[in-house]
Formats: sequence, C-alpha cells, structure tokens
Amino acid sequence: MKVLKGAALFGQSGGPTSVINSSAAGVFLEALNQENITHVYGAEYGIKGILDDRLFDISKEDRDELELLKNTPSSALGTVRYKLADYKKDDTDYKRLLEIFKKYNIRYFFYNGGNDSMDTCNKISKYLQKEGYPCRVMGVPKTIDNDLEGTDHCPGFGSAAKYVATTMMELYLDTHVYNTPLITVVEIMGRNAGWLTAAAELATYKGYGPDLMYLPETPFDLTEFTKEVKEVAKKKEGKVLIAVSEGIRDKDGKYISEYASSVSRDSFGHAQLGGLAAFLANHLNAHTGIKVRDIEFSLMQRCAAHIASETDIWEAFMAGKKAVEYACEGHTDKMITFKRNEGKEYSISYEMLDLEHIANAEKKVPLEWIKKDHTGVTKEFIEYALPLIQGEPKLKKEDGLPRFAKLEKKLV
Amino acid sequence: MKVLKGAALFGQSGGPTSVINSSAAGVFLEALNQENITHVYGAEYGIKGILDDRLFDISKEDRDELELLKNTPSSALGTVRYKLADYKKDDTDYKRLLEIFKKYNIRYFFYNGGNDSMDTCNKISKYLQKEGYPCRVMGVPKTIDNDLEGTDHCPGFGSAAKYVATTMMELYLDTHVYNTPLITVVEIMGRNAGWLTAAAELATYKGYGPDLMYLPETPFDLTEFTKEVKEVAKKKEGKVLIAVSEGIRDKDGKYISEYASSVSRDSFGHAQLGGLAAFLANHLNAHTGIKVRDIEFSLMQRCAAHIASETDIWEAFMAGKKAVEYACEGHTDKMITFKRNEGKEYSISYEMLDLEHIANAEKKVPLEWIKKDHTGVTKEFIEYALPLIQGEPKLKKEDGLPRFAKLEKKLV
Repeated sequence: MKVLKGAALFGQSGGPTSVINSSAAGVFLEALNQENITHVYGAEYGIKGILDDRLFDISKEDRDELELLKNTPSSALGTVRYKLADYKKDDTDYKRLLEIFKKYNIRYFFYNGGNDSMDTCNKISKYLQKEGYPCRVMGVPKTIDNDLEGTDHCPGFGSAAKYVATTMMELYLDTHVYNTPLITVVEIMGRNAGWLTAAAELATYKGYGPDLMYLPETPFDLTEFTKEVKEVAKKKEGKVLIAVSEGIRDKDGKYISEYASSVSRDSFGHAQLGGLAAFLANHLNAHTGIKVRDIEFSLMQRCAAHIASETDIWEAFMAGKKAVEYACEGHTDKMITFKRNEGKEYSISYEMLDLEHIANAEKKVPLEWIKKDHTGVTKEFIEYALPLIQGEPKLKKEDGLPRFAKLEKKLV
Repeated sequence: MKVLKGAALFGQSGGPTSVINSSAAGVFLEALNQENITHVYGAEYGIKGILDDRLFDISKEDRDELELLKNTPSSALGTVRYKLADYKKDDTDYKRLLEIFKKYNIRYFFYNGGNDSMDTCNKISKYLQKEGYPCRVMGVPKTIDNDLEGTDHCPGFGSAAKYVATTMMELYLDTHVYNTPLITVVEIMGRNAGWLTAAAELATYKGYGPDLMYLPETPFDLTEFTKEVKEVAKKKEGKVLIAVSEGIRDKDGKYISEYASSVSRDSFGHAQLGGLAAFLANHLNAHTGIKVRDIEFSLMQRCAAHIASETDIWEAFMAGKKAVEYACEGHTDKMITFKRNEGKEYSISYEMLDLEHIANAEKKVPLEWIKKDHTGVTKEFIEYALPLIQGEPKLKKEDGLPRFAKLEKKLV
C-alpha cells in the first residue's frame, strides 16, 4: 500500500435520494478517522462548489449530526447537474478544478451520483492522471433509477422501491373502496429503466398491486394500452389500477408524455418529463367513459426518508465508507459496486469497477422479466428486489416529526 | 338504563381515511362483547349495502384480523357517497331501510363518516323515531378535513396532518437542493376548511415549511398571490415552497381550479376539484420565468397508514368503542365528540352531541389564526395540532411491507 497524505473532498451530484446523505455519512465518518487524510471537505452543490471555491470544513461538524445524515433525505451539501466538457476540446473547468485541488492539497476525491455523475467523476480522474497530479478518485453510486452498470443494485433504489410498494398497497385499498368504476393511473420515476415502476410488483406480491404495468424497456402502444385497460375494466367492475413509468416511449422512440405537451430538456439534453399520468387518464376517460384519477409519486418517491429501507441506508453508508477505505489502500479511478453473494440469506460484498465502464452506461430490467401482457414482472424480480426493501429506518423523532441533520456548513 | 336487545349494524361512509377502520375495530370488538347485542353486522358500501341487503356477519371474522383493522387504511367494508332524500318528500329508501332493520332485528346502528354521512345518520335516526321503531343510532366522526362541528377535532385528521407535515419537511429538503431557482406548489385536500393545509405549519415549526400558505377561509387573489411569490423569490434566491388548499376561491366564491378547467360535481353537488397546483405552477412560470413544479398529495394524504398518528388511531378506535358503550347505556341520536381536557398534558374526553347539530355544519380554521400576509398560521394552530400527530403506528409488517387486515366478509 502506497501512502498518500492529503485532504479528502466529497461532492453530491444529480437528483437526490432518501439515502444519498447516508453515503455522505459513510465517507465523512471514515475519512475523519483515516490517519493519512489530513482534512475532510464537502463541496457545495457538487462540482459547482469546487469551481466556485466553496468547500465546507467537515471536521467542524458535530459527529452526532453527521450520524443523523443517515436518515436525512436529499443532498445535505447541495447537488448539481453540470456537464463537464471533453477536456480535449475545452479544459477551462479542468484547469480550475486542478487549481482548487492544489490549493487545498486534495488527494482523495469522492463523488456520489448516477450515470452522469460517474461520467463527471471519470473525466476528472482521467484529467488528473494526465496532469500527473496524484489523487485517488472514487465514485460512490446513487440512483433511485437503479440503472448503473456493473453493480447488483444501486443505493437509493431500495428505499424508493419500498415507498412505491407500500404506497401502491395503500392506494390499492383506497381506489377499490367505492362500488363505482374508477381507473387510476400512477406515474413513477424512471427515464429509461423501469426498475422503480417494477417495484409496484412487490405490492402485487402482497395482493394489493396494479392490474397493468408499463415500463420503458418495451415500446408503448396507445391503442393496445386502451384495449388492455378496457379488458381489465370488464373483468373487474371498472376498477383498474395502472403503474406507468414516466419514460415510456412509442415504437419510434417518442416519449408518450410528448403526445400531450412540449418537452423541455435539461443541461444533459435529457427530456424533462411530466404530466404523463394526466394525459393517459384523460385519454382513458375519453375512450371508456369511466371516471379516472391520475397520481404522480413526484418527488415523494425519492425523498420519503420516513419509509426508507434500513438495508438501503446501511448499504449506502457502507458504499461511502468502503470508497474511503479502498482509496486509502491505494485504489483509484473506480466506482464501488455491490455483488450479491451466493446463498439462501441475502448479503452483499463491496467491490470496485473501473469508472469508464460505468460512465453513461445504463442497466435495464431484463426483457425476460417483463410479462408480455403488461400485467407486471415475473417472480425473478420479486426475488431480486424483496431483500432490498427490508428493515425499518431508525429515524430520530422530535414532536412526532423527523429530526433531520443540521450541518454548520462552515466554509473553509 | 333501558335494556334493548338486538343486532348491531355498522357502516362506513364518505371518503376513506387512514383510521376509519380503527373505528370499525372499536365498534366491532366492543359490540361483540356486549351481552344485549345479539349479532354484529357490517354493511357493504355503507347505506347502499343496507338498501341492497348485503350485510357481512362480523362474528365470523378472525379476532386478530379485526385487530389489524386498526392499522389498515381505507374502508374495509367499502364506502359510499349516497344522498338520502328528505323522507317527507320521498320515503322510498327509508321504507326499504326499515324493512332491512326489521328483517335482521337491528336495534343498534352506527354510521361512520363526515358531514354528509352525519346528515344521513340524522335522517335515519329521525325516521326510525317517527315510525316508532326502537333503535339506538350513533354517529362516529371521521374526516381528514377536520371540519365537523362540536368536536375538538376529528378522527382521521391527525394522521393526514402527520403525513402533510412529514412529507412537507422531506419536500423542503428536496426542493432546496439545487443552486437554481425553483417554485414548488403543493396542493393539499380541503374543500371548504383549511385544517389540513394548515398542518404544513408543523413543518415550518421544525424549520422546513412552506414560505406561503393559502387556505379556503380567506379569498384568494391571483394577482396578490403572484406578487407575494415574487417577493419570496427575490428574498430566497428564487426558491419558493407554497402550500395551497384544493378549495381556494376568489372573492366571488369561484374555485381557482375552475379558472383553468371545467369542474364536475359529485352526487352531493360538490365541485370535484383537481389540477389546481398545475394551474398555479403554470401561471407562476409565465409570470416569473422561474422553473416550477406542481405536486399533489392526492390520495396518499388520506391513506398513508404507514405514517399514521398513533394518537389518531387510538382515538378513532375509542370513538367506535364509546359509540357502542353509550348506545348500550341507552343513548341515541348522537354523534361521539372529543373534548380536550384542561391541563398541561394532552388528553380528551369522549362526549356526545345531537346529530342534528352536526349534520351539514362546517367548522373552519379561525380567521385570527390565519396570518394576513399568507405566510402561514399562528402558534395557536401548532398548540392545537401538535398533540394530534404524536405516536408511531404499531404497524404489523411481513417482508418489509404492511400486513393489512384480511376480512372474510361473509354475507348473512
């Protein structure tokens, strides 16, 4: 093991989750204990805070508050969607980053996020290598979409899946309560991968799930959809519960949400989706005459820390902690991955994969798990997902409400 | 105490809540223990199940499943919105009800619901009196809207308020995570009373609440609203979190949601609302240029049993139990009410009020509790509402998901 002495810097990137702060706790608490790590910094708004020279001194934080990060949703340091240019074309940002890294003698860099953030992390890692600046760079995975390559699953997914499954069970009861027909369309996050929508199958497993499910992995056909809904309505006295992924597209790749409205794009060029459930509900009302209701799980599915999975919280924490440990052992240019161990009882090992293998790749729900008749996903998904939602969060409460972490966030 | 021997019948009515089944558990478990109650029945879909002669034999149910009702959201027997005519004008339904009451020798009738359901309960009570049919009739209160007269608060409100407060805290963190402006409009249930929207103040009390709050108790002015949002945006770097009640109206009494769309009416003639948040968000985007997000708490706010208030669950149970006890003691034509006892520690007494005093009356948020600048409600509301959200539900879980009650529902 080659000793590298210097400061550690951690940043949060991309859409927040219920457990991204648990990874922050893992990084911070481990980094504060490492003898070769001289200072521990957190970047405000991810990469943007580095470019703006706005770093928080984590050693000034109360350790109890850092512990509370495990159960505090969203990104405590602030997050960002910022696409770095290819440094061969424009190295302005990279030069500035290196300047800041040198200013604070940053030799350990941890970046927490999904596909795009791992792309950022990979680019920074490669640039620092090219410049001959010794710095250990580690990606810490995070995404409720569960679409990162090379890992069994992603921190954030289990908690969001638990929210989706539990809420779908509750909604099932609520939407079956009258003796009158009602079609309910529930829109769930997932731009290109249907993992989170598939989590509604866990509610079906308990007897309270949706009748129909539409994932982005297979083309969506509005006519076929209408026919399928009508068939269920006929069988079930007009009561139909439908789970749709926000990112469903037709056979030509056009987002169904675009059928109704114009779509804006974020800085990565991704279409910003929304209003899909309302569009489908109105369409179904017009074609069936049945009363409809559209429901969006909206931001709640990614920030409902009160119903997070303890397994997810723990694994997110360990992903952060392991990133620091492995970096201190000499590893760099990697992302932490989860490997599911063999055996009857669920357990995982924390491994690593080259950043460039992960950046911008997307893991989708296997097509053979998706039922052709759109009634859901197979039992293989249940076996896969059920262990990930286990355990109740040890959420500290005051006055019956969550006591979230309060960081000082003192700028260096 | 005059002894009246016969069967007991219980029905659920109006929109479901997280704890309406806890009242059912209170009624059923107490009625099954009363020696003068010969049979215990539950009506399918409230009053409709009586008219259709569809009663469930509750004595056939597993007692453990009846216990699980305490934590099972929505209405286990099914619910209904059905307006009884004035019996002086049309007594068709009443004759049929009396026929069924006689058929099963029903001498105890318990009806669980809000304003409209208490109207139904009152009418039935008066008709049975007129016909000289001895039957003890008791209303069991229920509504997330918290708008029933003559009671400190209503079962169902505490749990919905806890959902609103907790979710608002989580959303606060999620919507303040980027360094870019974002206006978020959250729509909360409440047709004429703003109690549930006011519950967002509990999040403010913890430091994570909305900047602006609009209740139906005061007229809504779109121009004033836009100005107030712009002022907050200016002060808070464009980040604005807004809580609006679905039922806000302009000074002429027109629903703001009607500004955007035509509104359908339910069988009580109430306007069916929706899409208000989307309308306001689009309006704000057009007038500020800031990115907007509209969020509806939709059905989740009334069925999220996983985050119910244990205080609410217990009080709902006791409301059902007390209704049976009081009826067996000889009381009739009443609704159970909650009286808050004097003293530092929160406690309530279970009292009664004549049904006709409650039917169709509405209790609103006191105007002196509503801040004129629309930034929220006063500390009087916090003192009022905070005790109602206390205690975590003892939710039985299997596989990390709720284990809801499974009733046999055997028809008599």
